[in-house]
Amino acid sequence: MITAFAPATVSNVNCGFDVLGFAMEGPGDEVQLALNDLQEVRITKILPETVKLSTDPMKNTAGVAIRSYLKAIDSSQGVDVVLTKNLPLGSGMGSSGASAAAALIGINKLMGNKLSNEELVPHAMEAERIACGSAHADNVAPSIMGGFVLVRSYHPLDIVKIPSKANLWCALVHPQIELRTEDSRKVLPEKVEIKKAISQTGNIAGLMIGLMKPDLPLLSRSLVDEIAEPHRIQFIPGYLEIKKQAKAAGATGSGISGSGPSIFALGETREVAEQAGERIQSVFKVNNVTSEVYVSPISDVGARILN
Amino acid sequence: MITAFAPATVSNVNCGFDVLGFAMEGPGDEVQLALNDLQEVRITKILPETVKLSTDPMKNTAGVAIRSYLKAIDSSQGVDVVLTKNLPLGSGMGSSGASAAAALIGINKLMGNKLSNEELVPHAMEAERIACGSAHADNVAPSIMGGFVLVRSYHPLDIVKIPSKANLWCALVHPQIELRTEDSRKVLPEKVEIKKAISQTGNIAGLMIGLMKPDLPLLSRSLVDEIAEPHRIQFIPGYLEIKKQAKAAGATGSGISGSGPSIFALGETREVAEQAGERIQSVFKVNNVTSEVYVSPISDVGARILN
Repeated sequence: MITAFAPATVSNVNCGFDVLGFAMEGPGDEVQLALNDLQEVRITKILPETVKLSTDPMKNTAGVAIRSYLKAIDSSQGVDVVLTKNLPLGSGMGSSGASAAAALIGINKLMGNKLSNEELVPHAMEAERIACGSAHADNVAPSIMGGFVLVRSYHPLDIVKIPSKANLWCALVHPQIELRTEDSRKVLPEKVEIKKAISQTGNIAGLMIGLMKPDLPLLSRSLVDEIAEPHRIQFIPGYLEIKKQAKAAGATGSGISGSGPSIFALGETREVAEQAGERIQSVFKVNNVTSEVYVSPISDVGARILN
Repeated sequence: MITAFAPATVSNVNCGFDVLGFAMEGPGDEVQLALNDLQEVRITKILPETVKLSTDPMKNTAGVAIRSYLKAIDSSQGVDVVLTKNLPLGSGMGSSGASAAAALIGINKLMGNKLSNEELVPHAMEAERIACGSAHADNVAPSIMGGFVLVRSYHPLDIVKIPSKANLWCALVHPQIELRTEDSRKVLPEKVEIKKAISQTGNIAGLMIGLMKPDLPLLSRSLVDEIAEPHRIQFIPGYLEIKKQAKAAGATGSGISGSGPSIFALGETREVAEQAGERIQSVFKVNNVTSEVYVSPISDVGARILN
C-alpha cells in the first residue's frame, strides 16, 4: 500500500501558450494504491463521494495512466486505486493530469521505479487524451517533474525541465463558472498575424532568460500573451480588472491558467501572491462569481510519495 | 585619433526570426575617427575605394549613427571619419550595422564614454533606418554588445544580452548572388498558422535553455525556423542540400543569416565550423555560385577600440 500526491499545475503561462507549464506545491490529488492478485486495475473508491467521476479504469485518468504504464513495462499486475480528488474538475488547474501523475508516481514506486519521471509523462498524456480529447503534456509534465517545464515538441516528444532560479509564489483563483476546454479552444483562430507570432517568440525568450538568470523585471515584462488571451478574455468576467488588480498588488504577472476559467498570479513573496489572490477574488465577487483562492510556492518537486 | 572595429553579425538565427542575433569575432568594419573644429561630421574616405557607398554623412550609416549620437548628448562636436569597409554590402552579415556600431563605439570613446554600450543601440538603429528602411536592432545590438542578444520588444525598446554559456563557432558563407532585403521580406505572409507560431515559441524557448544551461543537443534540436525560412528557400540555390551538408559536417545548426543570401552554420569546434563552411561552399559551387567563407567563434565582445 502506498499513498502518492501530485500537485495542481498552471499551463500556458501567458507567452508560453501551449508549450509551458509549472507545478504548484499544492493543492493536489492523492491516490492510495494496493497491489491485487486479480491482474486488474480497479478504481475502488473516489473521495469525496460527491465527485462526479467514473470509476471505470478505462475512463478515469488515474486508471488509464496506470494501465498504459503497466502495458509499457509488460506487466499484468493488478492494482486497487482509491482516488482522493482535491482539485476541482474543469478548472484549468490541471486536475485530470494531477490524478494521472499521482497514480503514475505511485505505481512506478510499487513496481520498483522501472521508469524515470520523464518516462512517465507519455502515460499521463494517454490519460489526458481520454479526459480532454488531446494528449497534451503541459499539465502532466510539470505535475510529474515539478518546476517549470517546456514542451518543445510533440513529434518527437521533447520535454525539458527549465533550470529556473526564480523563487516565485503563485495565487491560483478558481471561479465557480463552467468553461469547457473545447469552447476555450474553439475561439482560437487558425492563423495569427506574423507580428504577433514574432512578439510571442520575443516574450518567451525573455521569460526563459528571466527564469534562468534570474531577472525578475525581465520575467515580468515578458509575461504577455498575444495569441490566446485576447480571444479568451470573453469567458472571464471582469478579466481586464483582474489583470489590473493583480498588478496593483505587485504581482510579477497574471493570466488565465490553462484554458481557464482559473486565474493565476505570480509574486516574489507569499504576501504579494496572497494580496493578488484576494484582489482577484474581489473582482469575481463584484461580478457575482464566487471563487476559491489557493496560494503556494512554485514547487521544484512535482508528484511525490507521501508514505 | 582613434580606430574602432565592429564585427559581422548573424540575425534571425532560425527560430529567433526577427528577435535574435549574435556577433562574430570577425570579420568586421573599421573606422578611424579624428575630432575636427568644423562642427561637422564628415566621411573623408571609404576604403577600399571600389566600395560603392555614399560619403554623405546623412546617407552613410557611420555618419548617421554619429550624428544621432552627438545630437543625443547635445554636442556640436565635428569629426572626420575614415571607413574601412571589410564586410560585403547586402550580404545578410550585418554590414550596414557594423559600420554604425564601430562609429558609435569610437565616437563614444572620444567623447568620454557618455553612454553605455546598450544606450548606443538606438543610434545604430537610426543608421539601419537609413540603410534598410526599418530601424531594426537585431544586427546592431549584437555588433555593439557582443554575444547573443534578444530584441524582446521595440515598443518600448527592450534589448537583452543573453547570458550564454555555450561555446560555439560559426561559419558564415557569403554567395555572390544579389538579394535585396526588400525582396526577402516581401515573400513573408502577413499571417502564419497558429500551430507554427506555437512551434516557434517552443523552439526559441529550447534555444534559450540550450544556450544558458548550456545543453547543446537541445540547442541543436531547437534551431528550426517554421516561419520565415520556408518562404526564403527559393532565393538560395541548393538550400536543402546546404542544410544537409552542414548537418553531415556535424554542425549544430544552420540557416539563412539575416534576410540572406549568406548562410551560417554553427559548430562546437573550429573544425566543425570549417568543415561545414567548406561543404556549403561546395554546394554553391555546384550551383555555379562563387562564395566566400568566414569562420570565427561567436564573440562575447562586440564592437571595440583597436587603438
